[in-house]
Amino acid sequence: MLHFDSDYMEGMHPRILEAFVGSNMEQTTGYGLDEYCVMAREAVRKACDAPEAEVHFLVGGTQTNATVIRALLRPHEGVLAAATGHIAVHESGAIEAGGHKVITLPHSCGKITATQVDEYMTWFYADESFEHMAFPGMVYISLPTEYGTLYSLREIEALAEVCRKWKLKLFADGARLGYALASEECDVTLADLARLCDVFYIGGTKCGAMFGEAVVMRKGLVPHFFTIIKQQGALLAKGRMLGIQFLTLFTNNLYLDIAHHAVELALRIKRAFVEKGYELYFDSPTNQVFVALNAEQESRLRAVTTFTEWERLADGRLVVRLATSWATSDENVEALIAKL
Amino acid sequence: MLHFDSDYMEGMHPRILEAFVGSNMEQTTGYGLDEYCVMAREAVRKACDAPEAEVHFLVGGTQTNATVIRALLRPHEGVLAAATGHIAVHESGAIEAGGHKVITLPHSCGKITATQVDEYMTWFYADESFEHMAFPGMVYISLPTEYGTLYSLREIEALAEVCRKWKLKLFADGARLGYALASEECDVTLADLARLCDVFYIGGTKCGAMFGEAVVMRKGLVPHFFTIIKQQGALLAKGRMLGIQFLTLFTNNLYLDIAHHAVELALRIKRAFVEKGYELYFDSPTNQVFVALNAEQESRLRAVTTFTEWERLADGRLVVRLATSWATSDENVEALIAKL
Amino acid sequence: MLHFDSDYMEGMHPRILEAFVGSNMEQTTGYGLDEYCVMAREAVRKACDAPEAEVHFLVGGTQTNATVIRALLRPHEGVLAAATGHIAVHESGAIEAGGHKVITLPHSCGKITATQVDEYMTWFYADESFEHMAFPGMVYISLPTEYGTLYSLREIEALAEVCRKWKLKLFADGARLGYALASEECDVTLADLARLCDVFYIGGTKCGAMFGEAVVMRKGLVPHFFTIIKQQGALLAKGRMLGIQFLTLFTNNLYLDIAHHAVELALRIKRAFVEKGYELYFDSPTNQVFVALNAEQESRLRAVTTFTEWERLADGRLVVRLATSWATSDENVEALIAKL
Amino acid sequence: MLHFDSDYMEGMHPRILEAFVGSNMEQTTGYGLDEYCVMAREAVRKACDAPEAEVHFLVGGTQTNATVIRALLRPHEGVLAAATGHIAVHESGAIEAGGHKVITLPHSCGKITATQVDEYMTWFYADESFEHMAFPGMVYISLPTEYGTLYSLREIEALAEVCRKWKLKLFADGARLGYALASEECDVTLADLARLCDVFYIGGTKCGAMFGEAVVMRKGLVPHFFTIIKQQGALLAKGRMLGIQFLTLFTNNLYLDIAHHAVELALRIKRAFVEKGYELYFDSPTNQVFVALNAEQESRLRAVTTFTEWERLADGRLVVRLATSWATSDENVEALIAKL
Repeated sequence: MLHFDSDYMEGMHPRILEAFVGSNMEQTTGYGLDEYCVMAREAVRKACDAPEAEVHFLVGGTQTNATVIRALLRPHEGVLAAATGHIAVHESGAIEAGGHKVITLPHSCGKITATQVDEYMTWFYADESFEHMAFPGMVYISLPTEYGTLYSLREIEALAEVCRKWKLKLFADGARLGYALASEECDVTLADLARLCDVFYIGGTKCGAMFGEAVVMRKGLVPHFFTIIKQQGALLAKGRMLGIQFLTLFTNNLYLDIAHHAVELALRIKRAFVEKGYELYFDSPTNQVFVALNAEQESRLRAVTTFTEWERLADGRLVVRLATSWATSDENVEALIAKL
Repeated sequence: MLHFDSDYMEGMHPRILEAFVGSNMEQTTGYGLDEYCVMAREAVRKACDAPEAEVHFLVGGTQTNATVIRALLRPHEGVLAAATGHIAVHESGAIEAGGHKVITLPHSCGKITATQVDEYMTWFYADESFEHMAFPGMVYISLPTEYGTLYSLREIEALAEVCRKWKLKLFADGARLGYALASEECDVTLADLARLCDVFYIGGTKCGAMFGEAVVMRKGLVPHFFTIIKQQGALLAKGRMLGIQFLTLFTNNLYLDIAHHAVELALRIKRAFVEKGYELYFDSPTNQVFVALNAEQESRLRAVTTFTEWERLADGRLVVRLATSWATSDENVEALIAKL
Repeated sequence: MLHFDSDYMEGMHPRILEAFVGSNMEQTTGYGLDEYCVMAREAVRKACDAPEAEVHFLVGGTQTNATVIRALLRPHEGVLAAATGHIAVHESGAIEAGGHKVITLPHSCGKITATQVDEYMTWFYADESFEHMAFPGMVYISLPTEYGTLYSLREIEALAEVCRKWKLKLFADGARLGYALASEECDVTLADLARLCDVFYIGGTKCGAMFGEAVVMRKGLVPHFFTIIKQQGALLAKGRMLGIQFLTLFTNNLYLDIAHHAVELALRIKRAFVEKGYELYFDSPTNQVFVALNAEQESRLRAVTTFTEWERLADGRLVVRLATSWATSDENVEALIAKL
Repeated sequence: MLHFDSDYMEGMHPRILEAFVGSNMEQTTGYGLDEYCVMAREAVRKACDAPEAEVHFLVGGTQTNATVIRALLRPHEGVLAAATGHIAVHESGAIEAGGHKVITLPHSCGKITATQVDEYMTWFYADESFEHMAFPGMVYISLPTEYGTLYSLREIEALAEVCRKWKLKLFADGARLGYALASEECDVTLADLARLCDVFYIGGTKCGAMFGEAVVMRKGLVPHFFTIIKQQGALLAKGRMLGIQFLTLFTNNLYLDIAHHAVELALRIKRAFVEKGYELYFDSPTNQVFVALNAEQESRLRAVTTFTEWERLADGRLVVRLATSWATSDENVEALIAKL
């Protein structure tokens, strides 16, 4: 049986494991104040062409979303997001537990547009009683989205502009950022994100690390963010483990190499599905493949691999997601394709 | 200029004012432990035919919604509500500030159905990752709704049944409850609500009181609710002011008399609008009248009365709301109608 | 039986009741946007000699403390207070429910000093791991304190200076402020508070109003405080009731007249206790009298009046508090004194 | 230069690293539902002689404290703790950020007693206005304490009994639990804790793991704790990393072996300090050594090792802490002792 359930089924990229082995007996101070973290921050800043940016390492995605949003918003503010946004659906109410409303906008393949934000804000301030509503204080986007789709540079620039216009913060959830950056269809770079977003993060957990997310934020955006991280329970005692991982990922281009590998294999799988007459549900150019299976296809696929069930459609078809990662082998991809 | 903006534009019903005058120099203990509160609680219980129910007096509606929901839900739970529900739109994120997600369902004239709840719950538990989502823990309805519409007894019974099935609490926001009870189209009684809901409240502020909401809850539902009220900043020091008001409202049927008066005048206004060719936007049988005005109608109405602007439609028409109350006079209603 | 339990046992000062009666049938807009509130804000600003100050009317004390503190502090901050401060003891954890730690300092008769704050801050930043602790973001004082004691102008100036030094907000809880201002021993004025504090409030509930607290804050201190008030459930729908009360209290010096009356009678009671050999527990110059009763005194006092039990001392004596108000009559004071 | 700053300066115990290496390419499901976690839970249950207990793996200590406390307490409740408790001092207000007051009791060498709890509860309910205070809902203890001291079995039994009496939950923070269990002076076992506490945790981060805390709780204590963990941002995507670590720690007695090693070396250091005339500040029988250094001693120690500065005493002496771990070598201990 093959396993294409997700991109976090294996441990960690071998080079990270080597780095753990090599550094294991070294003694360092805790909480991210060690030399590995210093170097990793510098490597991330360099990759983002953002020498002034603040870089903070947290452990997981929901944790990062909750910590960033709570740190940035004032009490009366909420966060605008696609109705399909991870913070709106699959974080168990973590944003609300931090006191803030997730204000959802209809999505188009997981995306929202600058126009939607502009219209919402226009509508908001036109309402006689807008002071009785949660104020939008931030726009949250995911790159890639939960449906594996991408924002173009132009779309993000437009969002950044509309955010400036309405004094909203722009926050990009990059839990799978590598797979966007590595996609041929993506014209957005880390430097673009650092320039256009107030804050975004570079996902490690789903892109080859054992765990870890690297938050990149405008300098001075959140005084004492360290203490807010601690308060949120998101400060790793042996913080160097995060530094070691991101230093490894941002040495010799490993982060993008991992992502390119996974995207290439995913595209191969996607093409095979299409050639064999399966119907794509979303046409993702990243490491995720979404297929709508009829009964026959479903039983055939179940016989060869595990996957994530996305949704059962009204017509009985099952939407499933297959994902590749740094650890996916050519052999397994070929084995899968052979049985489609 | 006439004023039909809302049902809380005047002070309080004269009998309440008299009761304040008559009792002003009496000395009582604070925080709702006085004799007026004791008697008022008993009067409310009697009106609800619920001798065992707990009755608590709070000051305002948003406060009551936030306090009740925070007291009843566990950390991982959210509350199901119509997308138009007051808690979802016009409480400045108060429910989320208390840590809980408002999970919205599409509304039909402000209402949600038992079927919708059942389908949501079925969908929820069918999702592979339901444990990563906020659990629905309560259903919130408004009676009348924000659009002045009513739930029938059968509809509430069905909601109560689906709540039992899925172990959800049922909570009815009765900020304008009197105007529902007083409507000819309403077949729901206070006793029905006490029997079917885990908790509901009888609005005072918008039904003749100076302020105040009477929460009626199943006995033992929330241990130490008093302390939660205090923590929420919702405990009135001179609590007897609440007792005096609700005792007055629930003596000699005043609460319903107030509501009948307002509803009757509102129906007269509604009929006049229809007769003169205006288009109703919602057909509310309560004290609120919703009309969609074209440009000519809008300028004519603006010349004679103030009102609440509800929404500017895409076709340029303006939806407005007119409301009556205990204080609305026949003269003013006639003066309005004459100028339509 | 006499009743000296507290200063909120009666309804409201007759002039407020008259103002309610006189204005009852007027129609105004809600939420504090009416003319009474406009005039009351202006009257408060004038009394504070602070033409630029923002004035907001809330309903009760715990509510006001919770709303102000939540609005002013950032997530990683807590509030420094005397261990006896109302927010630390008798608000059911309302400040913590809003997410913030109350950091307590030892008190001296209910007071804390600038030196204590300075030492705490010095200690805080000297700690290697201060970034792992809640940052003090505000100093909270009560005037008068929970023990009826007063800060001198020099003491408050010193606190304001130390707050500037360490970038802390200074917040004065004035739930009983009138009784401080009216005390002969007090050299602090409303203008001093407006000048020295970032925010303070003028208590109405315990100083003759039916309810209400007037928050005075530096202009621009909290953007969108209105929405935070709403979110906290602290926005009164019929907001004019607050305006009417504070306009009445700040017309013709009523607020201070009320307080002078109460303080004068309390001093008379205090002197009588002392003359008859009772022992004061705190020597309050305000409307509160604190006496430590031996068994014989306790039973004598219980026979003539009710009071608030403060604390049972280890030696068996009972500390009790008697309070006077606008409603306390000479007759009742004489009747009490005659039986001591 | 030697480094005795803390017990989390190195990576992880070699056997854990080996287990990571050995399992790295395996594919498992996420979020702790994998076979390693299943086996690790079983191993923990067995070590605790608690076949029914629920075992959950979280990442860090502050996170675990915040998650457990928020999951167990109702809104009106706070947690009783020593004034020196980690949750009271060094978690950046994480418990309050979750909405709950930490109610501190004076400590004796970091400990609180059943008598103190009993007296607090007696005082609490004797107060006329206890319903206006945060209700104690839980007792929090640390084992070992922040000062390296131990509770005896009799002391914990007494605490458990007083908790039953007053319906309080008993929660033991075991961030360094191994070092207590391994101490000769400790008569408490894991089985005792499982029997006496409602919930406790077995610290991994400071006892040889890379990260991780194993929460052991009474079955059924917190429905849907999984979702609360997720909401708190404490759910590790690659959850098996926690399972692998705890399975390794609880195989062949590794957890206790690690702790015995560290404690033995710490005792050797402690004896050396005493023999050479240094003064212990706390006499800890665990892996931590607390010494009060005069100026001469301070400069001598600074020349040979780094350490944690605990507190500068009024007389100028510096209290420092040295800690040992699984990674501390005999050589380094001898090198340290030689230079004292």
